[in-house]
Amino acid sequence: MEQEVRVCVFGATGYTGAELLRVLVNHPHVRIASLLSKSHFGKKLKEILPSFYGFPLGDIKLSWEPEEDFDLAFLCLPHETSLELVPELIKLGKRVIDLSGAYRIGKPDVYLEFYGFEHKHSDLLEEAVYGLPEIFREHIKGARLVANPGCYPTATLLALYPLLKERMEIESPIVDALSGVSGAGRKTTQKFHYPEMEGNAFAYSVEKHRHVPEIEHIVQKVYGKEVKVRFTPQVIPLARGMMVKLYVKCKEHDFKELYRETYKDEPFVVLLDEPPSIKQVLGSNLCLLYPYYDKERSLLQVIGVIDNLGKGASTQAVQNFNLMMGFDEGLSIRMLPIFP
Amino acid sequence: MEQEVRVCVFGATGYTGAELLRVLVNHPHVRIASLLSKSHFGKKLKEILPSFYGFPLGDIKLSWEPEEDFDLAFLCLPHETSLELVPELIKLGKRVIDLSGAYRIGKPDVYLEFYGFEHKHSDLLEEAVYGLPEIFREHIKGARLVANPGCYPTATLLALYPLLKERMEIESPIVDALSGVSGAGRKTTQKFHYPEMEGNAFAYSVEKHRHVPEIEHIVQKVYGKEVKVRFTPQVIPLARGMMVKLYVKCKEHDFKELYRETYKDEPFVVLLDEPPSIKQVLGSNLCLLYPYYDKERSLLQVIGVIDNLGKGASTQAVQNFNLMMGFDEGLSIRMLPIFP
Amino acid sequence: MEQEVRVCVFGATGYTGAELLRVLVNHPHVRIASLLSKSHFGKKLKEILPSFYGFPLGDIKLSWEPEEDFDLAFLCLPHETSLELVPELIKLGKRVIDLSGAYRIGKPDVYLEFYGFEHKHSDLLEEAVYGLPEIFREHIKGARLVANPGCYPTATLLALYPLLKERMEIESPIVDALSGVSGAGRKTTQKFHYPEMEGNAFAYSVEKHRHVPEIEHIVQKVYGKEVKVRFTPQVIPLARGMMVKLYVKCKEHDFKELYRETYKDEPFVVLLDEPPSIKQVLGSNLCLLYPYYDKERSLLQVIGVIDNLGKGASTQAVQNFNLMMGFDEGLSIRMLPIFP
Amino acid sequence: MEQEVRVCVFGATGYTGAELLRVLVNHPHVRIASLLSKSHFGKKLKEILPSFYGFPLGDIKLSWEPEEDFDLAFLCLPHETSLELVPELIKLGKRVIDLSGAYRIGKPDVYLEFYGFEHKHSDLLEEAVYGLPEIFREHIKGARLVANPGCYPTATLLALYPLLKERMEIESPIVDALSGVSGAGRKTTQKFHYPEMEGNAFAYSVEKHRHVPEIEHIVQKVYGKEVKVRFTPQVIPLARGMMVKLYVKCKEHDFKELYRETYKDEPFVVLLDEPPSIKQVLGSNLCLLYPYYDKERSLLQVIGVIDNLGKGASTQAVQNFNLMMGFDEGLSIRMLPIFP
Repeated sequence: MEQEVRVCVFGATGYTGAELLRVLVNHPHVRIASLLSKSHFGKKLKEILPSFYGFPLGDIKLSWEPEEDFDLAFLCLPHETSLELVPELIKLGKRVIDLSGAYRIGKPDVYLEFYGFEHKHSDLLEEAVYGLPEIFREHIKGARLVANPGCYPTATLLALYPLLKERMEIESPIVDALSGVSGAGRKTTQKFHYPEMEGNAFAYSVEKHRHVPEIEHIVQKVYGKEVKVRFTPQVIPLARGMMVKLYVKCKEHDFKELYRETYKDEPFVVLLDEPPSIKQVLGSNLCLLYPYYDKERSLLQVIGVIDNLGKGASTQAVQNFNLMMGFDEGLSIRMLPIFP
Repeated sequence: MEQEVRVCVFGATGYTGAELLRVLVNHPHVRIASLLSKSHFGKKLKEILPSFYGFPLGDIKLSWEPEEDFDLAFLCLPHETSLELVPELIKLGKRVIDLSGAYRIGKPDVYLEFYGFEHKHSDLLEEAVYGLPEIFREHIKGARLVANPGCYPTATLLALYPLLKERMEIESPIVDALSGVSGAGRKTTQKFHYPEMEGNAFAYSVEKHRHVPEIEHIVQKVYGKEVKVRFTPQVIPLARGMMVKLYVKCKEHDFKELYRETYKDEPFVVLLDEPPSIKQVLGSNLCLLYPYYDKERSLLQVIGVIDNLGKGASTQAVQNFNLMMGFDEGLSIRMLPIFP
Repeated sequence: MEQEVRVCVFGATGYTGAELLRVLVNHPHVRIASLLSKSHFGKKLKEILPSFYGFPLGDIKLSWEPEEDFDLAFLCLPHETSLELVPELIKLGKRVIDLSGAYRIGKPDVYLEFYGFEHKHSDLLEEAVYGLPEIFREHIKGARLVANPGCYPTATLLALYPLLKERMEIESPIVDALSGVSGAGRKTTQKFHYPEMEGNAFAYSVEKHRHVPEIEHIVQKVYGKEVKVRFTPQVIPLARGMMVKLYVKCKEHDFKELYRETYKDEPFVVLLDEPPSIKQVLGSNLCLLYPYYDKERSLLQVIGVIDNLGKGASTQAVQNFNLMMGFDEGLSIRMLPIFP
Repeated sequence: MEQEVRVCVFGATGYTGAELLRVLVNHPHVRIASLLSKSHFGKKLKEILPSFYGFPLGDIKLSWEPEEDFDLAFLCLPHETSLELVPELIKLGKRVIDLSGAYRIGKPDVYLEFYGFEHKHSDLLEEAVYGLPEIFREHIKGARLVANPGCYPTATLLALYPLLKERMEIESPIVDALSGVSGAGRKTTQKFHYPEMEGNAFAYSVEKHRHVPEIEHIVQKVYGKEVKVRFTPQVIPLARGMMVKLYVKCKEHDFKELYRETYKDEPFVVLLDEPPSIKQVLGSNLCLLYPYYDKERSLLQVIGVIDNLGKGASTQAVQNFNLMMGFDEGLSIRMLPIFP
């Protein structure tokens, strides 16, 4: 091993933490320095994540504080916890990839309205790089702090980006999005109790959702002007996976070509000639896109799928890690989807 | 029993046939005269539909031709088969409720393009009443031939109807719709093989779907002018259930009141103050609606759920039956959803 | 209506309460006097059970105490709560059907070991009739207090009963049982969080399960001597349903005939010639049984399925109700399983 | 790369083929020489297995005959096809890992009764090594032809092996086994159509199943005498996964110690102190075992889980491959289970 990066994972026992570890364990340049969990410290990882039985990593004890020195921290924490931990880590000279929403939106005032807390670290908020490699690759490379995108924004922005980049005239886009239940995290709630979620599906946060300011903020950054997005998140009965359907009124154009051209060098974005299915990307870092233009209605429609815990969270975090460290971008995240 | 209607079910062994029988068996004025199935005739019903074990109906032999005289036929058949059978039954003086699409769209030329056959019975096509009681109740009452609506059109039209009725100005609506797998029928295909459909979801027929001309035809009939609908059907991993999300650009209005007023006397349409969930209507004849107006984007959004085999097919067929026969409209279809 | 029974449901908002109400609402001789819930009192039923939207029952307010006089109480309560409430209700002259385990096992000392509480109402424990109509029909008819059986014991005892009745020599039977997740109740837990239960299955309480003394107690009562049962409950990923597989070493016999003969007049037990499937009884009061004798291994195997919330709980409670009240035993519980 | 093995996969488009490729693609010493499929030849792999979109392997054309020279063949074919192909390949000097059942049971006459064909290659049948490394590791190393075990036998034999090895006295064991639907292959059938399999579970082949002679044959080989196994396979509603529950009458013994000792050096067998769950091994090569002795009933019970497509088929095939080639046994199959 030429180079070894010592890595800490804060909040190792949630779904994004688990998926991150599943991938990092195969990374040739990563050494897991500590796994942290304030709710389960003192226990072994496998006691909280039974899929680690049979693997040395499963026997690591969860700790309250980092147990040895480290170079980079992945934060799989609640927004409020990340908010305060990030400045401390940065002050200690660590690099940070934050999977929470605490440093994604460069407008401090948004946080009070959408997250319910005041954001007092506006300098770091400004410095943080939004970790969507297909748009911000060059900025990610040198970043100290990467704000790893939300799953809905990842899929939505990859579906929108070719239009934004080309400054196409777009009228308030509609985003109708389906998510697997793991998107809501590991905490139990009545609606996600198995007997009630099996065979069920519903929309939520129709009037207001945190991912809207995140999407609109990045759109404005790339597109140069404000765009209002109508966003309807829905939960469907599957553990992992996400599908967004984007509807945009706009003039005719060779959209298939535009999308293909935009992403032709991207290792993890694939254009399809027919609608993709969620399971096609299960456990992978892929995003599959299918654009279709309806001439009769002057409407562009783009369908995209990702794994909400993969490209929508943890494997994308590793993609960012690889970029930050100057490694091959696809190291340890080129695995095939699991099928069936 | 004051009155007894002798009923035949053609195509008794598919999903709509099974659901129809589950309901009819409790109908106080129905006598099942014959169950017909060209693929399984000679066998007992329970051999093909194992949920009928333990019930006398399960021992009925499936027949090729009606075995005794009857008053009314339910057709749960392929479109092409219904197309030819309906005129024969009508000629014999029978009343008919056709669950296929063969008599739903009053424009013969649509059939060649969307169904792949020439429709030569334009007189009956014109006579057929579209069996959506909330819009066409009075016509249904006297009808000889009722064309029972498709599941997608049922949910879509109930979401649109208050706008149509009020002649609101609406710009090309977008309908994004989710369906359980039973909507595709009982015939097996690779995509719906359990290991491939579990944890999966995908859009299909994005460019062209039979339900679009059905929806647009009825919209034109009610609204008085042509409206183009963008329609994206999707399959999600559940056996039964349907959710439509309607997006319409339009001026502000008290939509909650409009919807409540429109449906205030309807026994099977219920307005909610929060997004409904699919499982809330499982096994019932209900349609739940939730309208929401996004002022910032001048966009009305309506979310509706039905059971695709209930209000989207078989229980609606019985609602039509009750109307045609002058019975209490809710007879035998007032059952509660099954939960969990 | 000749006769009207005023009924209270205590603990109306759990799964057995919901299923009970779904059935009672169609019962021609039942009037719901009050719905009680200490956790949700003051709210409307539909706020806690969204499947009641659209039905008058959904608007009933949950109360702390019965709001009007009543004749009979269904208790869908935790064991400890039932334990204390039953004597109070009996003292008031009410008849009671208790769906908890508090009065099922006529040996007070079992409760300390398996339920964790001391049972001080041994008189009522002795009086209580075990509500399995296929075995105790005559006793149920006159009972003041019926202890409605657990789901596992219902299926197990129906599979064993023909052997017990005939005093067949049986060596410690093995019962391997699969249950849908609703069997564990409505309370959320990590293991039953949708993302973790989808695609999962596991055994639990392998070393000790409450249903073992319940089964063994009834076996002893019927069979006349003690039999030790090895019982392995498992959860599989489905909302409702139960399958038991009974393995008993015994001498050859015409078991198909024995089973058929035993249950020939039973309206809700059906003998099949091939293994039944769980979904065949979804939402019904049926129990399907398939006995098979393996000559080479001198082993009788019986496979049985029920709906754990139907024959395993609430519809069986209504069957007991009908017996207690002298009604037709199948009133309001003869509904067909839902399919698919 | 020190060494490169050129590999052909026959029957690349079924579930075992897909899983095999998912693993082989990460193997440092494997070069895929050809992918063969008689049903889909001429098409690209990704057209039949959409999870290969975005990967170079997905663009490989499926061929009728091997397109270049190769060293070893994996056969993911129907039994009958493997039967005839194996001798041809061996004659050409290829090494073969056969995932079908055609060379698993060293008794030619069994095939007529259980597989419906006459087995005329008794020499190869005798030569074939049963590919269960935990029992036959040394034989596998030098083998030309490895018969990869069935999924049920793999889990059953790993649960039984410590007893066999120790010559414990065991009385006709009972094996009650649950399988995910992928165990039945990719071919569609009515029972596995999504709407019918969701929420369903059932036993099948109760009277006679191909895996019984396979299990009994290996038991006899290891144990030295005949043992009759009662085996009840069941399908439960999940895509992948398997659980066996073994029940054996036997004298008391320190079984936890025996099992731990037997498997202490095995990289892929893990002993647990509580019942394992199926999802704990999803996508991995692990087998988790939990032995429990019920003193009161003199009954040993062992619960084991594997992924039916992993340790039950394709990753075990790669484990055998590594052994045959003298590679590190765990190469490319040490991946963590996917969770959730």
